[in-house]
Amino acid sequence: MSDYLGDYSRLSLNSATTKKLTLPQVIDACVAAGIPAIGPWRDRVAEVGVENAARLIKDAGLRVSSLCRGGFLTAPDAEGQAAALADNRAAILEAVALETTELFLVVGGLAPGEKDVIAARNRVAERLADLVPFAVEHGIRLVLEPLHPMYAADRALISTLGQALDLAAPYDASAVGVAVDTFHVWWDPDLKSQIERAGRENRIASYQVCDFNLPIAADALLSRGMMGDGVIDFATIGGWVRDAGYTGDIEVEIFNQDIWDSDADAVLATMKERYARLVVPHA
Amino acid sequence: MSDYLGDYSRLSLNSATTKKLTLPQVIDACVAAGIPAIGPWRDRVAEVGVENAARLIKDAGLRVSSLCRGGFLTAPDAEGQAAALADNRAAILEAVALETTELFLVVGGLAPGEKDVIAARNRVAERLADLVPFAVEHGIRLVLEPLHPMYAADRALISTLGQALDLAAPYDASAVGVAVDTFHVWWDPDLKSQIERAGRENRIASYQVCDFNLPIAADALLSRGMMGDGVIDFATIGGWVRDAGYTGDIEVEIFNQDIWDSDADAVLATMKERYARLVVPHA
Repeated sequence: MSDYLGDYSRLSLNSATTKKLTLPQVIDACVAAGIPAIGPWRDRVAEVGVENAARLIKDAGLRVSSLCRGGFLTAPDAEGQAAALADNRAAILEAVALETTELFLVVGGLAPGEKDVIAARNRVAERLADLVPFAVEHGIRLVLEPLHPMYAADRALISTLGQALDLAAPYDASAVGVAVDTFHVWWDPDLKSQIERAGRENRIASYQVCDFNLPIAADALLSRGMMGDGVIDFATIGGWVRDAGYTGDIEVEIFNQDIWDSDADAVLATMKERYARLVVPHA
Repeated sequence: MSDYLGDYSRLSLNSATTKKLTLPQVIDACVAAGIPAIGPWRDRVAEVGVENAARLIKDAGLRVSSLCRGGFLTAPDAEGQAAALADNRAAILEAVALETTELFLVVGGLAPGEKDVIAARNRVAERLADLVPFAVEHGIRLVLEPLHPMYAADRALISTLGQALDLAAPYDASAVGVAVDTFHVWWDPDLKSQIERAGRENRIASYQVCDFNLPIAADALLSRGMMGDGVIDFATIGGWVRDAGYTGDIEVEIFNQDIWDSDADAVLATMKERYARLVVPHA
């Protein structure tokens, strides 16, 4: 057990977990807690400027596991599509500056008033095709993240790992990958076989951990919980991800009002303990 | 349009939509609104007694489209399993008394403290095997209902139509069917192909309609909305169900606090208008 408790070499703090901290504060908290990697959100990067953010992270001796996030690719009109492409190209350049290869995409939901999920998904595929050459040119992998189906309408019409892999299939694995986020995919009856497939196809770009809390929070976006507080079997899912060959960083990304309202250092201490006990032994 | 507006021949009111009404009140409301069928919940049946309920419904000239519900089959202990089987056998006999052939099963979630979804799903399959002979003997079809993945942990570990069909596969189509409830399945990227499969396998036992409202209600169980108030494309899904050969009743089942707090006759008037406009033309 003590061996595991010491092994934080793959742990990355997604900055959403400590939502109230500025990027310099998150960096300091990671250094103080001995967490070697960080997954910043773009808004916190923008506050200090991307070049400055990159320097602060590098000077602190941290690595960037991923950048959150691009996406929202479902605009039905030319103007909205151009804006989405411009924003995603900017995100790709930010990823380059931050020296990560992994850019998360939350692909977007239905347009306002729209009900045609098939048309909206087709637009995701079209915008992905628009973006891939620019991403490849800059050495960035676009990471398709399946989101829990409760967010299908307004955040991401990719709801399963299999669907993400189908969308990635036309592209090289270095250009388009997929994320396995336990919160979003734990319920999927095809999860084991799709994680195996993702491994075979070399597309696992990120393993994100957090729990699925019950009851679902009044704001459904905030139902993510600290590992161990909910229903997710990290041993089983983590074992599948391990057996699929994934050896990269493991990000902890939690949207949870109680956690955001708690002292950040205490949150990181709990996170490290849960990570060591529930995640590391199966990773 | 006027033809459609008049065709309520397949419309059934699930009693959960008018949750505050007793069974005699629901029956009266259906008769007053010209709704020919009813899908009662067992609690409202039990209040008046099943034989009395059957007589009241029959005397009112209504038919019973289904009975809600049996299920909750995931108890890990012998005592809990025996209790679940006893309850489901009672539900089968109630369905017989009410002269419906369709008994909905909400299969249940994880046991308290459990995290092993595969083991829990295996218990569902085992209890289903226990129940099928009794159901067949009484001419009742057990209707597996996939529930939205947001309810996987605590209500139903069947989250997709494909998974329900896999579970039904060992049994004759007259013994085990599946429900297509728009709220639960609209997001599924495999929905079209699985509805087609359900049709080929003659397993579509019920088509239930209601909308998926945004934002998700603070009590996530109550996010079901009146058709037209949310994101669901009834034309597309209804067309798939029609093309799969389903010609049975179409139940409206809505859990929604605002609707429950509204005047029931007004709710049924709105329901009829939305049903005629959004559902009938594609059914």
